[in-house]
Amino acid sequence: MGTPAIVTMTTDFGIQGHYVGAMKGALLSVNPYVQIVDINHEVTSHDLLHGAFTLQCAYSYYPSQTVHLVVVDPGVGSERRGLILISENYFFVAPDNGVLSLVARQEKIIKSISIESDRYFRRPVSSTFHGRDIFAPVAGWLARGVDADEFGPRVDDIVHLNLPPVRPLEAGLEGEVLHIDKFGNIITNLRPEQMAGALEGRQVRFVLNGREVKQVVESYAEAGQDEIVALVGSSQYYEIAAREKSAAVLLGAKRGMKVELRF
Amino acid sequence: MGTPAIVTMTTDFGIQGHYVGAMKGALLSVNPYVQIVDINHEVTSHDLLHGAFTLQCAYSYYPSQTVHLVVVDPGVGSERRGLILISENYFFVAPDNGVLSLVARQEKIIKSISIESDRYFRRPVSSTFHGRDIFAPVAGWLARGVDADEFGPRVDDIVHLNLPPVRPLEAGLEGEVLHIDKFGNIITNLRPEQMAGALEGRQVRFVLNGREVKQVVESYAEAGQDEIVALVGSSQYYEIAAREKSAAVLLGAKRGMKVELRF
Amino acid sequence: MGTPAIVTMTTDFGIQGHYVGAMKGALLSVNPYVQIVDINHEVTSHDLLHGAFTLQCAYSYYPSQTVHLVVVDPGVGSERRGLILISENYFFVAPDNGVLSLVARQEKIIKSISIESDRYFRRPVSSTFHGRDIFAPVAGWLARGVDADEFGPRVDDIVHLNLPPVRPLEAGLEGEVLHIDKFGNIITNLRPEQMAGALEGRQVRFVLNGREVKQVVESYAEAGQDEIVALVGSSQYYEIAAREKSAAVLLGAKRGMKVELRF
Repeated sequence: MGTPAIVTMTTDFGIQGHYVGAMKGALLSVNPYVQIVDINHEVTSHDLLHGAFTLQCAYSYYPSQTVHLVVVDPGVGSERRGLILISENYFFVAPDNGVLSLVARQEKIIKSISIESDRYFRRPVSSTFHGRDIFAPVAGWLARGVDADEFGPRVDDIVHLNLPPVRPLEAGLEGEVLHIDKFGNIITNLRPEQMAGALEGRQVRFVLNGREVKQVVESYAEAGQDEIVALVGSSQYYEIAAREKSAAVLLGAKRGMKVELRF
Repeated sequence: MGTPAIVTMTTDFGIQGHYVGAMKGALLSVNPYVQIVDINHEVTSHDLLHGAFTLQCAYSYYPSQTVHLVVVDPGVGSERRGLILISENYFFVAPDNGVLSLVARQEKIIKSISIESDRYFRRPVSSTFHGRDIFAPVAGWLARGVDADEFGPRVDDIVHLNLPPVRPLEAGLEGEVLHIDKFGNIITNLRPEQMAGALEGRQVRFVLNGREVKQVVESYAEAGQDEIVALVGSSQYYEIAAREKSAAVLLGAKRGMKVELRF
Repeated sequence: MGTPAIVTMTTDFGIQGHYVGAMKGALLSVNPYVQIVDINHEVTSHDLLHGAFTLQCAYSYYPSQTVHLVVVDPGVGSERRGLILISENYFFVAPDNGVLSLVARQEKIIKSISIESDRYFRRPVSSTFHGRDIFAPVAGWLARGVDADEFGPRVDDIVHLNLPPVRPLEAGLEGEVLHIDKFGNIITNLRPEQMAGALEGRQVRFVLNGREVKQVVESYAEAGQDEIVALVGSSQYYEIAAREKSAAVLLGAKRGMKVELRF
């Protein structure tokens, strides 16, 4: 007997409505033995990058064979495909709109399947809610052990998001603010690994919204009162933070703003 | 051995406090084998119609024998009864204040029980939190297989909500805005089925807050940029929507506003 | 075979991000058989008292042997210890920063362990996210039955919060607002038990923000329209409430405000 099947959910449906509840019902109707784990239902509406980033920062902590179900789906009802990606460790089920781009770059993808076999769908299929009628049931069947190839043909041309660019500067990098978390920590798309050896022995500083952040620390607790610091966060992105305060408020930072790393 | 017992929860207790956590504990103390599924804990405070609508849009997707626990309970501590409704497929546990009205109209109800046997309650019973002390434990015992008649006498006069009316117009219907979802989609209480054959071959349009919506589509993705459209949503209500924008913001719509369907 | 292991989670990580999802993955990777129950992820950021109060109002309703995992952790990455407390009924896992103070006063604590054995940690351990890399895995191992003494040495000097004081007045008590719930009910830190026999036969009234509340009732439903009342709430604290309205809005109450009980 194996471990129980786990299906995680990442959506932009919000917790203040019935959409998530309906999806969970559709999933459990196919597979009542599954353990459903909410990752985030408050992805910014229609925001594929937010969905992709959330998934990227959470998926890899789950046990092998977990099914990650992601529904941020502004194109629902149009011709956009549904997708199953299978990597060495995980299954991913989502619309083929780029929301799986970040994990597709990070995981070794073994198979990509276009979801087409409607016998695995809930009927009738609504033209506005494939989360409930297609993606949740498909995740349930996958978690029951149905072979991925049963769901449709293999494809090799999945949609990729235009990711916020990281540009080289004369002495540094220019990236942008990817996310502001509940604490007001400002997560950028800059990572130490992007600089290879360039950092060795050099002092790094950041510039955001016209303000300079010079202090690079290891943990939030090292920041002095009212001091704004930079650190490598728990998902390996540089972030800008303040001690028990919102760095985003202090700096007037918003998602999408440019941020420079200089050395 | 059957499928695992599922208990869904729909409440107005909010996720930012301890009420939901206390209820779940009281439920698991009676029945630790149950799988608890959150439908919505952010029902508008004391809003029976919002609770009833949320439940109606989600309950039917669950496996047969699911226990749906609903606590929106402004009259807690007064003489209002507690209720178990049993339909062919589901159990419903809630205060008898109308919050089960919509499912009672939709499901074939086999038994209605007034919850009175206090040996199934958590003791002492608080006069302000029957969700924790009565409804959650009763749901737990039901999910353990206790016969519904053990909880109290049968009743046949349950409380019904005054639902927002749908009125005939000379050439159409007048209804109102039932709900605005996270995306800003405006869900009305008008359904295609209410018009029987009257619609055949006719063009339909909607009027809301002095603005006309003429385009009726099948999916959000069919709307043009900045175009406001109407469609039959995933719960079979007409809704008014915009493409990746909030129709509610664009039209200044609020819950309870009148909406006209004209043909 | 015993009952399934239950792990509850109380954090300030927020539901609109990936932190909770990553923690749950780390927990399930250690122990996929655990049932995870969310108590509250919207504890006010860095607010140990809010975390402690939430836990205190929910933990005791859970089955014996439940593991309560609490992460409100402004000092993450500093020298603050990680803690396992074991009482007759429960396990508690949290940073040693006072967030367990209220349960430590209420439960009979059998063992206090400083979490030090890094073989139970996720590696590498981030300096900013011990919830994912230390506390969640430790909770998972505890729920798998690993003996608490395996995690580190016993300690007897845990950190206590400075709790909001209750001061005697000439004819009453002065306390403060502990919490305002989703309904706008104002929960104070005053409890009937604090007055021993002093209350017998006497009328009690409350003063908050310059306004007097004279009516003491048993349930919200006893309040008249627009009447503000006091009552003993479901967690045995006095609270100030209004009927289907926000008493906090009506009285301009905020957390931390002084409140007087007079008799």
